[in-house]
Amino acid sequence: MKALVTVMPKPSVLDPQGAAAAEAMRHLGMENVGRVRIGKLIEIELPDGADEARLNEISRDLLSNPVIEDFEVKIVNR
Amino acid sequence: MKALVTVMPKPSVLDPQGAAAAEAMRHLGMENVGRVRIGKLIEIELPDGADEARLNEISRDLLSNPVIEDFEVKIVNR
Repeated sequence: MKALVTVMPKPSVLDPQGAAAAEAMRHLGMENVGRVRIGKLIEIELPDGADEARLNEISRDLLSNPVIEDFEVKIVNR
Repeated sequence: MKALVTVMPKPSVLDPQGAAAAEAMRHLGMENVGRVRIGKLIEIELPDGADEARLNEISRDLLSNPVIEDFEVKIVNR
């Protein structure tokens, strides 16, 4: 099975990388671009029947920083 | 409208960040984890009717490095 973990900066947290990308996009001809936020997309190959609860814990403790980021785990094929 | 741009390392390219995450997951009790790849997820707020062709060019030229990364642009709401 395959899991996709998305990790995004929390809406209340400053995202300087996203702000820089938005500024660059404005200079490159997309003047009306709004907010840009940059997070991580983590693709994990797992044996079928892997422990999804453990995967959730690892996503929280290892793959994201819950102080400043939200994460979501999605199983894409079993 | 909102666009989601995903940028992932090409399958043939070494992803040391992903390899380190896989190794750490094995130490944390998921011994059977397979390949892990870490990419970027970029969330872009745009005015309705924004130029999607231009967004594609910018995703290729600014948001990704086409030598080592693949990108995909998805419009999630209009």
